[in-house]
Amino acid sequence: MGQALALGRRGLGRTWPNPAVGCVIVRDGRVIARARTTDGGRPHAETAALAQCDPRGATAYVTLEPCAHVGETPACAAELARAGVARVVIGTGDPDPRTSGRGIAMLREAGVEVETACREAEARADLAGFLTRVTKGRPRVTLKLAASLDGRIATASGESRWITAAPARQLVHAWRARSDAVLVGGGTARADDPSLTVRGWHHDRQPVRVVFSRMLDLPHPSALSTTISQAPLWLCHGPDAPDEVRSLWAGAGATLIETAVTGGQLDPGPALQALGRAGLTSVFCEGGGSLAAALLDADLVDELICFTAGLAIGAEGTPMLGAMGISRLADAPCFALGESRPIGPDVLHRWTRS
Amino acid sequence: MGQALALGRRGLGRTWPNPAVGCVIVRDGRVIARARTTDGGRPHAETAALAQCDPRGATAYVTLEPCAHVGETPACAAELARAGVARVVIGTGDPDPRTSGRGIAMLREAGVEVETACREAEARADLAGFLTRVTKGRPRVTLKLAASLDGRIATASGESRWITAAPARQLVHAWRARSDAVLVGGGTARADDPSLTVRGWHHDRQPVRVVFSRMLDLPHPSALSTTISQAPLWLCHGPDAPDEVRSLWAGAGATLIETAVTGGQLDPGPALQALGRAGLTSVFCEGGGSLAAALLDADLVDELICFTAGLAIGAEGTPMLGAMGISRLADAPCFALGESRPIGPDVLHRWTRS
Repeated sequence: MGQALALGRRGLGRTWPNPAVGCVIVRDGRVIARARTTDGGRPHAETAALAQCDPRGATAYVTLEPCAHVGETPACAAELARAGVARVVIGTGDPDPRTSGRGIAMLREAGVEVETACREAEARADLAGFLTRVTKGRPRVTLKLAASLDGRIATASGESRWITAAPARQLVHAWRARSDAVLVGGGTARADDPSLTVRGWHHDRQPVRVVFSRMLDLPHPSALSTTISQAPLWLCHGPDAPDEVRSLWAGAGATLIETAVTGGQLDPGPALQALGRAGLTSVFCEGGGSLAAALLDADLVDELICFTAGLAIGAEGTPMLGAMGISRLADAPCFALGESRPIGPDVLHRWTRS
Repeated sequence: MGQALALGRRGLGRTWPNPAVGCVIVRDGRVIARARTTDGGRPHAETAALAQCDPRGATAYVTLEPCAHVGETPACAAELARAGVARVVIGTGDPDPRTSGRGIAMLREAGVEVETACREAEARADLAGFLTRVTKGRPRVTLKLAASLDGRIATASGESRWITAAPARQLVHAWRARSDAVLVGGGTARADDPSLTVRGWHHDRQPVRVVFSRMLDLPHPSALSTTISQAPLWLCHGPDAPDEVRSLWAGAGATLIETAVTGGQLDPGPALQALGRAGLTSVFCEGGGSLAAALLDADLVDELICFTAGLAIGAEGTPMLGAMGISRLADAPCFALGESRPIGPDVLHRWTRS
């Protein structure tokens, strides 16, 4: 199962809308096949592994319950049984209502021995994006916050390059690579002119770039507009975004997603639901402060990845989080510490919603 | 030397204006005496250790160069030689101009073998407060910053208890205990009504409490005023503090220190110099944001102890650092990471001025 988990993790950010599953087939103590869900989501891990071997009498280790529904391809549970696999060991169940327990039932009815919940906590952590999309209808949101000791992301004059050092920034590219999409607000797109692509990791598959911008008032041409051929660009905008800018961006190859406005701002809840419907299972949000505060305020942040740099900017600097309307500590969203460690000259601390 | 260093550390916060030195005397591979500088600064560690044994032919391990000047007591270098110690191993030299190398010379002239710079980095770290006072005329300043994920120390309504959890707050008391003094600004004294005493560590010697308050406009009676019998209270104020409040606080038992005002604020540089002249070698500053920013701005912070709690408060909250007038990143004071680790549910990260 350890090998299956490691294989599955290699597919993160590459298999959406499908889960990044890993599958290892073992007979007589020897691995005879290993596969993960293929880039783009098909074939599934089980299908790919079955194609590598004669699995009769073997044991298949799969990180997620094999699917029970016939879609473009036959159900994986049926395929495993038909191929003669004797035993299936499963990491965690698939909450998708088309499968949820039916994959296991289908295997057992066919006489296959089934063991469940093998290293389940790890499987659930790896498949967290997929599980969030199935259960909440939206992608899992990881919010990156990189700031000075006192929580500032730029000086009063707007200087922000660079507060954190190269090792932290390099790690950010690794996180982009394992996410289905990278998300920023319109203010960051205007202020930083970012390309949001994965660089420095010899990565052959770029995540979708998503910008939340109610009025689509984004610079054009820009680092985002000129790189659409390398990496998809999706723009979530409000109903009041002018037709001419919609046409401009659509003409440049961007995908436009109209979504609801609440209180004068693009509502992050419906926007993330729209991204979930479009297939995204994980979104890596890189700010800015207004979008980060809106996501936290709406309780839409599942994980925080914080980098703290060893410099002090003072109260005139730009805050890492915008206004949140919190007056009582009891109302502040709380996170549980995952890990904390030095990363180059900076500190990395990761938190999950508690 | 390891034992001598550990002994010396036990004296931190208890021996000012003298350094917290440790001394271990060894003969034939056996420890025959061990002592640290006594509470209040006298007797010195060497004198206390010599009184425990017959040191003829023995080796003395001392964390700091023995003093060469005759004050209230004879010079330690002379005492060691006269007692017949054969060899002295020294952690680090004493930069005090009355000693600086002369302690070593005095020993060698008396025929004692001297070895220097033994575990010097540790000795210098332990004695950093004393070394700072001798070389810069002011106590070493450790600034504590405890804030939310986004660098806030209170909500918009002023609620600040508690952002960090009990383990972090308990550690703060340990840091108070090993400091000569605890320092806050007048705003914090007004907003929080703190007592600034060491609690929870069965500590029999309280650090001096220092408040920087230009006009002495502090609440009275208050947790500070009613605890003066337990722990000294020193108030640094400007020349324009009204006579009646000076009398009020002096009458309550506080020590008043008049110091310079620059730009409408108590100037932290002269104030710290005054504290150095009064004998303090280490100050643990606990804020608030304005004093913290003023100290950082004036490059008077030697070490930062930061606690980050896993909650988000948003931009309306009180910032951990006040305005610093920094517009270019190159002008922001930089700190080098010492350690980072979880402390209860929070993260502790320590930084030193780089």
